Amino acid sequence: MSLALDILKIAEDAKKAARSVASLNSGVKNDALHLMADGLEASKKELQKENEKDLSAGKEKGLASAMLDRLTLSDKVIKGMADGLREVAALPDPVGEVTGMWKRPNGLVVGRMRIPLGVIGIIYESRPNVTADAAGLCLKSGNAVVLRGGSEAVHSNLAIAKVLSAACNKAGIDGKAIQVVPTTERDAVLEMLKLDEHIDLIIPRGGEGLIRFVAENSKIPVLKHYKGVCHVYVDKNADIDMALDIAYNAKVQRPGVCNAMETLLVDKDIAPEFLPLMAARYQEAGVEIRGCDETRKYIKDAVSAKEEDWGYEFLELIVAIKVVDGFNGAADHISKYGSLHTESIVTKDYATAQRFIREIDSSAVIVNASTRFNDGQQLGLGAEIGISTTKLHAFGPMGLEELTTRKFIIYGDGQIRS
Amino acid sequence: MSLALDILKIAEDAKKAARSVASLNSGVKNDALHLMADGLEASKKELQKENEKDLSAGKEKGLASAMLDRLTLSDKVIKGMADGLREVAALPDPVGEVTGMWKRPNGLVVGRMRIPLGVIGIIYESRPNVTADAAGLCLKSGNAVVLRGGSEAVHSNLAIAKVLSAACNKAGIDGKAIQVVPTTERDAVLEMLKLDEHIDLIIPRGGEGLIRFVAENSKIPVLKHYKGVCHVYVDKNADIDMALDIAYNAKVQRPGVCNAMETLLVDKDIAPEFLPLMAARYQEAGVEIRGCDETRKYIKDAVSAKEEDWGYEFLELIVAIKVVDGFNGAADHISKYGSLHTESIVTKDYATAQRFIREIDSSAVIVNASTRFNDGQQLGLGAEIGISTTKLHAFGPMGLEELTTRKFIIYGDGQIRS
Repeated sequence: MSLALDILKIAEDAKKAARSVASLNSGVKNDALHLMADGLEASKKELQKENEKDLSAGKEKGLASAMLDRLTLSDKVIKGMADGLREVAALPDPVGEVTGMWKRPNGLVVGRMRIPLGVIGIIYESRPNVTADAAGLCLKSGNAVVLRGGSEAVHSNLAIAKVLSAACNKAGIDGKAIQVVPTTERDAVLEMLKLDEHIDLIIPRGGEGLIRFVAENSKIPVLKHYKGVCHVYVDKNADIDMALDIAYNAKVQRPGVCNAMETLLVDKDIAPEFLPLMAARYQEAGVEIRGCDETRKYIKDAVSAKEEDWGYEFLELIVAIKVVDGFNGAADHISKYGSLHTESIVTKDYATAQRFIREIDSSAVIVNASTRFNDGQQLGLGAEIGISTTKLHAFGPMGLEELTTRKFIIYGDGQIRS
Repeated sequence: MSLALDILKIAEDAKKAARSVASLNSGVKNDALHLMADGLEASKKELQKENEKDLSAGKEKGLASAMLDRLTLSDKVIKGMADGLREVAALPDPVGEVTGMWKRPNGLVVGRMRIPLGVIGIIYESRPNVTADAAGLCLKSGNAVVLRGGSEAVHSNLAIAKVLSAACNKAGIDGKAIQVVPTTERDAVLEMLKLDEHIDLIIPRGGEGLIRFVAENSKIPVLKHYKGVCHVYVDKNADIDMALDIAYNAKVQRPGVCNAMETLLVDKDIAPEFLPLMAARYQEAGVEIRGCDETRKYIKDAVSAKEEDWGYEFLELIVAIKVVDGFNGAADHISKYGSLHTESIVTKDYATAQRFIREIDSSAVIVNASTRFNDGQQLGLGAEIGISTTKLHAFGPMGLEELTTRKFIIYGDGQIRS
């Protein structure tokens, strides 16, 4: 069979499975999730044997050690996958929830009921644990899933999917609800992205290159985020100690992730007092500072920031600092250079805080806390399938609810239109 | 200037306007809507003069009379537009609504706030009243709008937009929040559909040809419905009189619209009693019946249905009738031939009604009422901007809420991640 036909067959099987998975009771889905978790732990040896094939191929190909590290199914990673599945089992089931019901003048009772989207396609890079994490969230939200991981992890991904599908079958669920594309050909992704009659949503997870490739080639709607250029704005009425802690935490605690801060904006009235203290904290942690001219008045050894440093996602211990003229200066900067991901203000002023919440256009706007909290787990959504920095369907971290939509349900007693 | 640059300029102006429109108070937006309504009524003569240009061009081109009729800005149509805008002013403002707020163990207070999408592109065919209807809904939901109507209505659309923009300016709102593309070149649509950095959502309104053209050429997300192949299923436990009334109303009351019924499904146990009565009702109204072999046992003069009659959107007084084997037969038929638009069941049985609501996959599932109720106005959403039969972002009629998204808002008192 040709590659195109292979992929089509997977998608057709997924669509068929989706119809049966959509109306499963929560109890059945939760049983399957526990069986999946138990199955992964019981199959540790087989998983690690398959993983070894990927690891030796990777070593032969000369993959970097960080990459090999992400690829490894250690005991800890396998336990993490199993625990993750059990956590998803414990989350409330969004399917069937009726979000409001009202009565029309003619007696019709109208409501909206949450339903699954159908078939979700996940396209991701090297971490094989995404296979279990994404499959668990899709199953719990009543969707079938087609998973296409990195070619360097294909043995691991297939081994994981085999365990998950077997657990589905054991729970009485169509095992085709969870499928991994079994080929390493890059064209398989292109074939998947054409199947808008079978796949309802594509979620790419990985670097900006992968995400742009998927967005540009997909006939299917894509939920994505390209990058996280997050800002902290220190207002003139900020509590200085709080501002120091937040700006430090947002940059330093885990600089390589999308909700870490990249640019610090400081009101000109507080800059003389705040910036020297901040510089001392950053220098202690080895953070390189790239400042505007005004910033460099207070931080002598800051590098002079170039235009391309604003709006840049460093993902390492480098921070761009700009002194701005009040709220409007900060808002204009964020509007011009931000990526709609996460912005935080530090202020003691009520009106300024409320204005920031209302006017700043970003998937998460935060008062007096670190940008690092923009994360599905931290915000209380449970596990997250990804984060969206475009506004359609979902904006910000996506949990189970974002894998569903709502249909209208209408109860009548014979109404007709006149 | 080139066409591409003209369209880009419009989109850039719209994006700039969107930023200011997003944070307007409801009062200002409602004032503008009333000024728009008053303006249209006060400018009746000018509007009709411009409309006359379109009408005479249309007559010269030999447009069909139904088309000329849709194109005409009669006194009644202008009053309809004005009343529509006043109704939108009276609807609740979705922007700023906080849909739930919760507290995290670390004291963070997290909620989700409704915000506008940004810039909406509307691509439509001949009715110039869409210009006012769509502009009103976009403004009320805090969005800027770029309108691209049919080339045969360009003078009318531009005249309407001029009045609407002037009303915005008078209310202190950037008039560029409402713009009509001033050219009749078809390529203008293609240029619009490329501007995914400026336009957040495209809503096409018109025939299947237009919608497919837009969906295939757009880099911007599109909310669409291709067709409405709506079903009524008469269960064996139906109240016969109610079933006759609903199946009659769904087909006959206004057959040319998307929520009219196209196929009637009848359980085999009730068919012998129900079908002859139904046939009598339909024949009285001049409805052509195309039936399966089983149907033709009870309706002697029914035409024999061909495979292509199932799932076909007749949009006229023709009905396809199929006798099915219980709920599963009906569900299988809807799943195979339906268009996810509207499906209705007539039954007295509680469990069957609940199963239909839960299991049937369609933007509206209805028990004991006509399919004709799947409409934003009828369901209580207020005016509707269109209807979606795809599941992402919105499914079913789209009102003001569907022109918004939600951002996370987070109130802290110094929280950092450890």
